[in-house]
Amino acid sequence: MTDAALLAIDWGTTNRRIYVIDAAGIVLARERDDCGILTMAGGDFAGEVAAIRARHGDLPMVCIGMIGSNRGWAAVPYVACPVGVPLLARTLHWMEPGRTAIVPGVSIMANGRGDVMRGEETQVLGAVAARLAPDDSLFCQPGTHCKWVQAADGVIVDFRTTMTGELFALLRQHSLLAELIGGRVADGPAFRAGVRDAAEGRLLGDLFGVRASHLLGLRPPEDAASYASGLLIGSDVREQGLGTGEMVYLLASSDLAALYTTAIEESGARVAINDSERAFVAGVMAIWSEAHAS
Amino acid sequence: MTDAALLAIDWGTTNRRIYVIDAAGIVLARERDDCGILTMAGGDFAGEVAAIRARHGDLPMVCIGMIGSNRGWAAVPYVACPVGVPLLARTLHWMEPGRTAIVPGVSIMANGRGDVMRGEETQVLGAVAARLAPDDSLFCQPGTHCKWVQAADGVIVDFRTTMTGELFALLRQHSLLAELIGGRVADGPAFRAGVRDAAEGRLLGDLFGVRASHLLGLRPPEDAASYASGLLIGSDVREQGLGTGEMVYLLASSDLAALYTTAIEESGARVAINDSERAFVAGVMAIWSEAHAS
Repeated sequence: MTDAALLAIDWGTTNRRIYVIDAAGIVLARERDDCGILTMAGGDFAGEVAAIRARHGDLPMVCIGMIGSNRGWAAVPYVACPVGVPLLARTLHWMEPGRTAIVPGVSIMANGRGDVMRGEETQVLGAVAARLAPDDSLFCQPGTHCKWVQAADGVIVDFRTTMTGELFALLRQHSLLAELIGGRVADGPAFRAGVRDAAEGRLLGDLFGVRASHLLGLRPPEDAASYASGLLIGSDVREQGLGTGEMVYLLASSDLAALYTTAIEESGARVAINDSERAFVAGVMAIWSEAHAS
Repeated sequence: MTDAALLAIDWGTTNRRIYVIDAAGIVLARERDDCGILTMAGGDFAGEVAAIRARHGDLPMVCIGMIGSNRGWAAVPYVACPVGVPLLARTLHWMEPGRTAIVPGVSIMANGRGDVMRGEETQVLGAVAARLAPDDSLFCQPGTHCKWVQAADGVIVDFRTTMTGELFALLRQHSLLAELIGGRVADGPAFRAGVRDAAEGRLLGDLFGVRASHLLGLRPPEDAASYASGLLIGSDVREQGLGTGEMVYLLASSDLAALYTTAIEESGARVAINDSERAFVAGVMAIWSEAHAS
């Protein structure tokens, strides 16, 4: 077994993933917990970092994600697009010089429109670095907030975030539809029907239709959650205006991969699925190597 | 002063409006409270009806709205489109013969799509009966659930419901945007910018953009609520695919009239605003007269 060389922390809003990596980028150990920045009692990030090192070794550490936001360990400014590995390596925010760094988030401003990301940049650039996707690729990273990221010549040149996952969660928890769509979501005829209806671009009407169809007995209650998920994910895909046969590189680690694959293929585009953990680790390694080469 | 002839109750989910009307359809008295079907303690509808008669006179009564749903006084079946005044008069649900009636809701099923309404049908048919709008008109009734209703030859032939108001409330109360968009909504440049962005049909992305624009300093925080409202209402209008110069008859009694007027006009269509109370009372009178003529 090789020696551990680096600790990479994917430190988000509600969850945290810790990876112990060797010098070749192999993951030797992983830990996942709910110590996200908002759920971590007290917010003692320095203490948490010391505890991670006590558990996994006194190694250099790279932190990625919302840990670099104004509610995290340090408010690290966004780096503006275009952004590649060299720029992220140069703009690492060092909490301890040479030893503990936070990767900055990425922003874009164009035609009065703005967008931001923290964490997804590392996956996307890692996927390119590890040759999981070509230098010119469109990525999709589903989640609470789904990112659609365009890379060109191996750097991030444009991206859009959609509130798809959060909106679905709001509808399931708090809306008039809550009782009806609280069940399990599965890829299948009901999900696909939602995706097809979403292609018409009438989300606000179709959402009410979930209830109306129930009241009128047009759809079995057990199909409502999958249909509603199809509406949301189908709307997300529709908004991207994908070309027929266009390839989308999906970076996902959950059930969402299957659902987004169905919705993207239904739109006429194609999908290549990659494991988001592999892309993440490759991204951290690329940034860390670059920082030490320069 | 003329004698009171009829009590008309607009009995919704959270609110109730009581109108005391004379034989000519003039409103002699009105009462508004929060005794909607879900907020009325105990749900003793017969007792409530007796109390209303004790306050306003022992008169015939017509109840309209969610009072006729499965959570109301009686589950009155929907009447399927096309629906005009004569059909509603024939299908009145009598709680006490000749004395206390509930107007049925209206449903539509076409091409696998279903929709329902309870209460709005009375306003729309009243607007036509009172010549507030031509027999062939497209109506818009903003609210928690906005109705877009097509009348032809004086009967309701098609309609769509959008979840616009409910979705905006969910976002204001429970979403990541809640802190940012909790403020006052006003018609103005920020609202109009939201309407214009909504015309591109990218609601899921534009909603996240509310937060991103804030983080990047692209929009003053005080504009966020109006901009987000413009996104929602603009999306609602966009979904209807209105033609240039098409006339929309707006039935509204709140600030929403001004906002929908702006959004509809921004889309290139035209607006005529009518008072929803006047349309409601005219509708009740038309149904009641027809029931007694037959």
